[in-house]
Amino acid sequence: MVIEKMVVGGSPVASAEVQEHSYQVWAETERNLLLAERLVSELKQKGLYITTVESCTGGGLAYYITNIPGASEVMKDSFVTYSNEAKISLGVPEAVIAEFTVYSEETARAMAEAGFLKSVKADICVGITGSISRSDPSNPNSTPGIIYIGIKYGDRIVSQTLEISDERRFDVKQKIIEKTLEIILDMMIKPVSISSNDQI
Amino acid sequence: MVIEKMVVGGSPVASAEVQEHSYQVWAETERNLLLAERLVSELKQKGLYITTVESCTGGGLAYYITNIPGASEVMKDSFVTYSNEAKISLGVPEAVIAEFTVYSEETARAMAEAGFLKSVKADICVGITGSISRSDPSNPNSTPGIIYIGIKYGDRIVSQTLEISDERRFDVKQKIIEKTLEIILDMMIKPVSISSNDQI
Repeated sequence: MVIEKMVVGGSPVASAEVQEHSYQVWAETERNLLLAERLVSELKQKGLYITTVESCTGGGLAYYITNIPGASEVMKDSFVTYSNEAKISLGVPEAVIAEFTVYSEETARAMAEAGFLKSVKADICVGITGSISRSDPSNPNSTPGIIYIGIKYGDRIVSQTLEISDERRFDVKQKIIEKTLEIILDMMIKPVSISSNDQI
Repeated sequence: MVIEKMVVGGSPVASAEVQEHSYQVWAETERNLLLAERLVSELKQKGLYITTVESCTGGGLAYYITNIPGASEVMKDSFVTYSNEAKISLGVPEAVIAEFTVYSEETARAMAEAGFLKSVKADICVGITGSISRSDPSNPNSTPGIIYIGIKYGDRIVSQTLEISDERRFDVKQKIIEKTLEIILDMMIKPVSISSNDQI
């Protein structure tokens, strides 16, 4: 809070701590923008559209992708499903959440499938779910920092579990977005021979 | 690109230009987080839920709001409608876009109304549309930097036009989010006597 007040108050001299943290935030932002730029370029080359269904990242992945000029040629829509009700409303089967919990690769894959079907035009859909910095009162089985990514790409569907730790909620989300962009890029350049439901 | 390469390559010494820009990105990020924190606190106090329907900000407003711990108590879902089709699919009347264009206060208000109805639980819904850094080939009437905000809050619906200019697309989006957070906060603390369809 002290750091925030210094900036909001417009202090002209940044402390060493502020300088270090500002550099970290900026470097992570630039890295994500660079990855998003690569993804948009890859999608454009292949003529594909992407849609996101985001829980814990709250729209951050779509935000980075749409920061790249020409993003409207690769994204038509995305969904922030920040509650179980919103996931179910989009098309995630209630039974999947009941059986595997909302924090699971099964739910991440179901989110990707639901967004794929609900989107006005999606060739790839990415679902992200997980708990970031505290236990979720509606879903008591959560472990902060364990994140589940599901990706539907044509007739392939894959998922992966990430473990991400950082002090600040904002920095954790930045890292989830970075890793997710890398996973999508990796999947796009891999041969299409991976069978359905394979783990990455 | 030179700046990006320096960081991605992990250069330990930041140039004066990098230091200045990193400080700017960080300060703007912290300012938006502080505004989002105030908004989440205000919503919690009033027991209200918010939903966003974002075009040019691409999920960035939802991203900032969900960066605040406890955001799940004030947001259930949000929508990124990054195309005319997605806006219409959400519930924006095609006739509104045809008559006023997608870049208009009328469309921003229609986006807010559509999200308000489509959300699993929304007491406030914010629509954001506009062109950021270049002319949009699908909507040739666009003027980069002119942004339209529509807010549905209970039975009130208001809208506002912003003019935002900056060199970088990323910085423009950060500023749109800042202004939108300020407008929502302002609306929430104003008396509820404003009549329907008033301009802010």
